[in-house]
Amino acid sequence: MQIPNYDDMLAAHDRIRPHIRLTPVRSSDYLNDLTGAQLFFKCENFQEPGAFKVRGATNAVFGLTKEQAKKGVATHSSGNHASCLSYAAMRRGIPCHVVMPRTAPQAKKDTVRRFGGKITECEPSTSSREEAFARVQAETGSDFVHPYNDSRVIAGQGTCSKELIEQADGLDMIVAPIGGGGMISGTCLTLATLAPETQVIAAEPETADDAFRSFKAGQIIADDAPKSVADGLLVPLKDLTWYFVSNHVAEIYTASEQEIIDAMKLIWKHLRIVAEPSSSVPLATILKNPDAFMGKRVGIIITGGNVDLDRLPWTK
Amino acid sequence: MQIPNYDDMLAAHDRIRPHIRLTPVRSSDYLNDLTGAQLFFKCENFQEPGAFKVRGATNAVFGLTKEQAKKGVATHSSGNHASCLSYAAMRRGIPCHVVMPRTAPQAKKDTVRRFGGKITECEPSTSSREEAFARVQAETGSDFVHPYNDSRVIAGQGTCSKELIEQADGLDMIVAPIGGGGMISGTCLTLATLAPETQVIAAEPETADDAFRSFKAGQIIADDAPKSVADGLLVPLKDLTWYFVSNHVAEIYTASEQEIIDAMKLIWKHLRIVAEPSSSVPLATILKNPDAFMGKRVGIIITGGNVDLDRLPWTK
Repeated sequence: MQIPNYDDMLAAHDRIRPHIRLTPVRSSDYLNDLTGAQLFFKCENFQEPGAFKVRGATNAVFGLTKEQAKKGVATHSSGNHASCLSYAAMRRGIPCHVVMPRTAPQAKKDTVRRFGGKITECEPSTSSREEAFARVQAETGSDFVHPYNDSRVIAGQGTCSKELIEQADGLDMIVAPIGGGGMISGTCLTLATLAPETQVIAAEPETADDAFRSFKAGQIIADDAPKSVADGLLVPLKDLTWYFVSNHVAEIYTASEQEIIDAMKLIWKHLRIVAEPSSSVPLATILKNPDAFMGKRVGIIITGGNVDLDRLPWTK
Repeated sequence: MQIPNYDDMLAAHDRIRPHIRLTPVRSSDYLNDLTGAQLFFKCENFQEPGAFKVRGATNAVFGLTKEQAKKGVATHSSGNHASCLSYAAMRRGIPCHVVMPRTAPQAKKDTVRRFGGKITECEPSTSSREEAFARVQAETGSDFVHPYNDSRVIAGQGTCSKELIEQADGLDMIVAPIGGGGMISGTCLTLATLAPETQVIAAEPETADDAFRSFKAGQIIADDAPKSVADGLLVPLKDLTWYFVSNHVAEIYTASEQEIIDAMKLIWKHLRIVAEPSSSVPLATILKNPDAFMGKRVGIIITGGNVDLDRLPWTK
């Protein structure tokens, strides 16, 4: 287990800066009044491929030696990591192999292909995915970039909160959604050195609360196939991200499906940005636990904005 | 007819700066590739009340003498001008009277009231509106702030393109939607002095193309009750805005209802912002007339982001 450190995060920022956007921070008087807090929303949905995951992916891709790079990168994901890794590989001009269940939404496949990613379809089971992925790696010799349990990826995600605390100073806490824990781990990594007085708080769907239960139990608990409208948050913690969560996260709050959808609508209506359900869990937990946030300066990571506009959760 | 000049716009900017947001400019590699142009979207939907109209309204409200201000302001509008004028009046702590048809959507009435605006309902006819408005003005002595045919309002709207050309230099043209012509007039006012080489182009729905026909005919043509999904663009030019349109606008392009909806979806999907149908007409016309924009640096005003999320035009 190679734990990334603060210098790794700084090096990542220098490496990825030409390839990512310095995303803006948005506020809403209405949402501040509603919560009694000062909320600073970091708009990672404004990254070109629409998610913070472009940071970690770009750090991994541009950190490869020339020799390694020729063989490309590979991952298994049907979400934002797949499109962000494809995007980063396209910018470096190297191959990106993505193993994806054949049942993944067509829109996700289209996005990966638009960025030049090569999809290998598998059956929607862990065994089929592992078999397909082993085959792709053996054939191509490509470098595996895990969606979150990867030192380079966590160092890359940490650059987001470095920007945020430069854009909104004196934050009492930063709240980010937690799935596998890549963004939360990067946030811990950065704040531990740069702003140790700023708490890191994770937000999770009630119906996929394995990180919450792990946090309370003091060991990783992984669920088999949790379901939530926040479809970016259904994967379990792994050893690297558990290291950061168990050592540095101050609290994990959860929110129900309806609370997540209500928060998403508030974000769209009052910040006028397109944010994913996963990105809406932090605001949902803030509204649910007002006393914990009242009077505080709170940073919130809007992690992504890739949404099927024809199937919004409140119009289904 | 009091035509505002460049100094009026500069004074407006100094006056309103503490009360409005310096909105960011967004770009999308995808939309640039699609159009072959470099597009710079000025996000006026990010103003607190969600529309550029807060600029002109704030200039009018904060330009009043103390004596005038006590009696408040008044307008007739069921759109963004009503909520933006209410918002500006609330910030100055003065009354705002809004005459609105009783048939206006409840959400619009709620927004005006949230900002402290006092609504007087009328029947949905011009005669009823004029009668009600005359009564309100007589009773209150409040200052009439027309949604667009007002020198203070046009000077205020002109501050938007001042910011835009400071944020994105060397623009070949700026494209904005045209309804009554307030934003377009302000843009003409500012660019005529600050960047005379930058063309002003107006974009209008085909089904409410009175400005286009006026422009071609060389005189104001007003339609009775045009209909379009771009519901902010259904009002006619007036003498002040006609002055700017006839003297300074380079071209007016139109787009169909379906083209406007398609452009709106592209903006939501690739810029990941919530923009109104009216704000989507410029991109629709750019996609329809690619040769006019290919290879150019093009500023686009995203005029507003107040949308009924339960009734999106592509899910109706």
